[in-house]
Amino acid sequence: MSDVVRINVSTGKIEKTKLGPEFDLLSGRAFTSRIVHDEVPPTCHPLSADNKLIVATGLLGGTGASCVNRVSFGAKSPLTGGIKESNCGGVCGFRLARLGIRALIFDGKPQTDAFRLLVIGSDGIRLDDGSDLRGLGNYELVSKVRERYGNRASSFSIGPAGEMRLPTASIASTDIRGRPSRQAGRGGLGAVMGSKGIKGVVILDAGKEPKYHDAEKFKSLADEFGKKLVQTKAALTNFGTASLVRVINEVGGLPVRNYTQGVFEKVEEISGENLREVIVARGGEPSEACMPGCVIRCSNLYNNAAGEYVTSAFEFETIVMLGANCGIGDLDVIARLDYLCDDLGIDTIETGAAIAVGMEGGLLEFGDGDGAVKLVEGIYRGDPVSRMIAGGTAVVGRAFGVERVPVVKGQSCVAYDPRSLKGMGVSYATSPMGADHTSGPAIPGRSGFDQSIKYDVTSAKGQTTLSHDLQIMIAVCDSLGWCFFVGPDPNTMALSAELLNAKNGTNLTKEDIIAIGINTLKIEKEFNQRAGFTSAHDRLPDFFSKEPLPPSGRTFDVKPEDLDKTLVFD
Amino acid sequence: MSDVVRINVSTGKIEKTKLGPEFDLLSGRAFTSRIVHDEVPPTCHPLSADNKLIVATGLLGGTGASCVNRVSFGAKSPLTGGIKESNCGGVCGFRLARLGIRALIFDGKPQTDAFRLLVIGSDGIRLDDGSDLRGLGNYELVSKVRERYGNRASSFSIGPAGEMRLPTASIASTDIRGRPSRQAGRGGLGAVMGSKGIKGVVILDAGKEPKYHDAEKFKSLADEFGKKLVQTKAALTNFGTASLVRVINEVGGLPVRNYTQGVFEKVEEISGENLREVIVARGGEPSEACMPGCVIRCSNLYNNAAGEYVTSAFEFETIVMLGANCGIGDLDVIARLDYLCDDLGIDTIETGAAIAVGMEGGLLEFGDGDGAVKLVEGIYRGDPVSRMIAGGTAVVGRAFGVERVPVVKGQSCVAYDPRSLKGMGVSYATSPMGADHTSGPAIPGRSGFDQSIKYDVTSAKGQTTLSHDLQIMIAVCDSLGWCFFVGPDPNTMALSAELLNAKNGTNLTKEDIIAIGINTLKIEKEFNQRAGFTSAHDRLPDFFSKEPLPPSGRTFDVKPEDLDKTLVFD
Repeated sequence: MSDVVRINVSTGKIEKTKLGPEFDLLSGRAFTSRIVHDEVPPTCHPLSADNKLIVATGLLGGTGASCVNRVSFGAKSPLTGGIKESNCGGVCGFRLARLGIRALIFDGKPQTDAFRLLVIGSDGIRLDDGSDLRGLGNYELVSKVRERYGNRASSFSIGPAGEMRLPTASIASTDIRGRPSRQAGRGGLGAVMGSKGIKGVVILDAGKEPKYHDAEKFKSLADEFGKKLVQTKAALTNFGTASLVRVINEVGGLPVRNYTQGVFEKVEEISGENLREVIVARGGEPSEACMPGCVIRCSNLYNNAAGEYVTSAFEFETIVMLGANCGIGDLDVIARLDYLCDDLGIDTIETGAAIAVGMEGGLLEFGDGDGAVKLVEGIYRGDPVSRMIAGGTAVVGRAFGVERVPVVKGQSCVAYDPRSLKGMGVSYATSPMGADHTSGPAIPGRSGFDQSIKYDVTSAKGQTTLSHDLQIMIAVCDSLGWCFFVGPDPNTMALSAELLNAKNGTNLTKEDIIAIGINTLKIEKEFNQRAGFTSAHDRLPDFFSKEPLPPSGRTFDVKPEDLDKTLVFD
Repeated sequence: MSDVVRINVSTGKIEKTKLGPEFDLLSGRAFTSRIVHDEVPPTCHPLSADNKLIVATGLLGGTGASCVNRVSFGAKSPLTGGIKESNCGGVCGFRLARLGIRALIFDGKPQTDAFRLLVIGSDGIRLDDGSDLRGLGNYELVSKVRERYGNRASSFSIGPAGEMRLPTASIASTDIRGRPSRQAGRGGLGAVMGSKGIKGVVILDAGKEPKYHDAEKFKSLADEFGKKLVQTKAALTNFGTASLVRVINEVGGLPVRNYTQGVFEKVEEISGENLREVIVARGGEPSEACMPGCVIRCSNLYNNAAGEYVTSAFEFETIVMLGANCGIGDLDVIARLDYLCDDLGIDTIETGAAIAVGMEGGLLEFGDGDGAVKLVEGIYRGDPVSRMIAGGTAVVGRAFGVERVPVVKGQSCVAYDPRSLKGMGVSYATSPMGADHTSGPAIPGRSGFDQSIKYDVTSAKGQTTLSHDLQIMIAVCDSLGWCFFVGPDPNTMALSAELLNAKNGTNLTKEDIIAIGINTLKIEKEFNQRAGFTSAHDRLPDFFSKEPLPPSGRTFDVKPEDLDKTLVFD
């Protein structure tokens, strides 16, 4: 049995309550979305006292299994105006779970503009003054936190962008080396944390191993699964997520210069293969775990030519959105941008999309890396033009009168052009989260519930089924703490049931697990509907269906009526 | 029988067609909304080839009656994403109507980025090259147009903001003295004109008096009505629309410093009474007509202390939104801002609201007139921060993390705080146009269809009925060419029928006229619904119902379920 901790930031009151049996299967995204759905007025302003920030661990979190320690953040999104869940790796999910905390719920609005830290340890939870931390980037914040609370402290936090309540603000979590490089990036949840006056949450210790109904069984299931992951995920281990650069470029689906081309002339410079070479040559780390126990180890550490730390968790989507999509092919420039985004606490994806739209509108030339760096650095000072970029892609589109604005529900599309990856386009269009590659990641090779059906991502055929199935299974992964690199597939659904049964002595079936995903999507859609979303919002921007993408000449040709059949239940 | 002229800006083809009988009663807003509803895909990008810009005269336009020569502009709005009609005075409505033109419809997208002029005369319609006009403000443009086409040419045009396709861009129309001071300000229709590559529409001559079925009858009705207007509208004639400054301040409903107060400490400095005194002392013109034949003459001409021209059509909403709402009490500063907005071609209302939200976010201090002037001047150069302001109030709210953002459907509320003027709040919330005072102007003293019912604007009681009735009658006024200062009341509805009968030999009743308004609102709501609007969008921002407005302490307390009963037909 785990606890939920409610923190009223208006009164400073902290209340710990046990969860009733109706929450037995609600954790991670299933939990955050349930609370947003039940407790947040759908038409409230996302920065108002009425919004809540929910932090939830997964039911498998804190165990010895690999890839189960992601932590979910949820709220009404300042970027989309709809329901939002964004999750990240790092150590916080693991630690919170081991402290027996299912969720934190921040409520209300602070009475002063001072920032505070929530400090969580085995011996209690309190709010500490954080006035001296105002304006700090996440990296400096982490070192101050360690100075104050000791080197064993881990944290999640906001940077200056979250303090400024910018709608692209992220929440950073420390990784196993204490770097704030794991980010719940999407949807501006850092702004909600900023509006609650919370600069960071510090977790003082690691708690203890959870109890298992059948520890031996759990361990054997987890070990066997771990071995399989090591065998099957070699590309991720070797080249990180950037192993996708060549793959997606080959499919003709890499966003280049604000979605005007599907292949990038500098693809080799930003490829996972080149990334690994550069990292190794400079004494970096091409493969490391971001969270305890992960055997895939797709994270990395990138140094500059002098061998000094630049950034870590340097990922495919970041490299493509801040790189190719801005016409930038220089890894050093992109790595610097990644560091800045992590330190400021803004979403690298939305930032890349926003800068590219600004470039199209004449703010900078495509390929102007120095200009992009200066623009992002301006956020530290609150420069208006930089704040505008951090206002998101749609905001920049308006200020620059641009028609090619790749957003759905106010959130930018990601590193997969939907004209060449059509299932991804279906996910962008129909996910309650707004355009989001993680919501239903239909990359080449993925299948849905029926694994015997193979899909051609470049064809519209069957892509709504693929996206529908993946969105359900992703909602399960997001709810149990899984990193979806384990595969949003029926095996993971079945394994989840087995692991939970071994841990808790339950009799869950694969179908029970799948139902978690379905129910979560249902209430998310319900919230959005009450917030004012209709099927008109489940559409890609027109240009994807009207402008053929060079060089393939493809358009997004999934029919609107088919989009409306996605995520329909009962 | 009048013509509709379709201009395909992709091909340059201009086609003139007669209208069928189904258009007999469709003019002005009824016409623009019908075409948007029937021909524009509701989810298209407002700057795309699929959107259309429609310019329509009123059925009473071009006649000898007072106050009937407004011209309507319609499109899908770049600001709200919904249907939009915005109309203005000046001479263009009168002239187009006298040339037998019911409407112009601009369609498609230009193949180059060159701007053109549409030139309309008795002997034909053509597109002229306007490359040399790029970047010109409306004032300089008008003088170039007169150089090229002679002093009898009148025009409507866009300034640099429309060229940049900014979502607050307006369309300027010349007044009877040839000044581009009459503006169809709201909803960014200037950006749609810019996206069509049209810098201006030049009307070379005044055409001829329309034919009357019973000229004598028409003249006697018009003359009698004109006399009544002279008697009843003395406040407008003497002090212009700024006569409302004291009235609305007294009600406690003047937006001050971004809607944080309802009375302004510098109210006397910006009052209509002081405005008149300053104008007279400096040799300006306190009262003049903006369109041919107007007997109310609420427009004006404002000089600086040296007696030089600063601006004209210096109106209540402009003075309040760029003045009190920004904490600025200096008429000279506000007049300069008004001139800049007119010359740049941006909406003074949205600009004032956007600057005030920026001030709340720390961009400038409240009351910093110099800062505001510099900010607006930056639009000429395309300065990013200035473009952001011209991106609209909601955009600024996002970039500055502000919670108090007074917009409905993306468009800013106006110079009447809905906590003290509750019927106005109902109109803001429920109008298909987004927040708009003209959509249902429930100021003190107004009644609805039943003129015997008197309303207290500060009480929620009956305000949905008042707004409902006014919105219908305003839709009629907007459709027939009426300036609504004639009164959105049953008398005007009856008079409209009588005037049209005298002109055309029809047998219209007051009910037929009212049906024009009802039908127009119906199709507008239908379009918005297909564009993705729901009742969740028919709401004021939360802060109006949660934050009591000093000094009255009022909140907006019209119930959501009552809002949903407004504009329900059948």
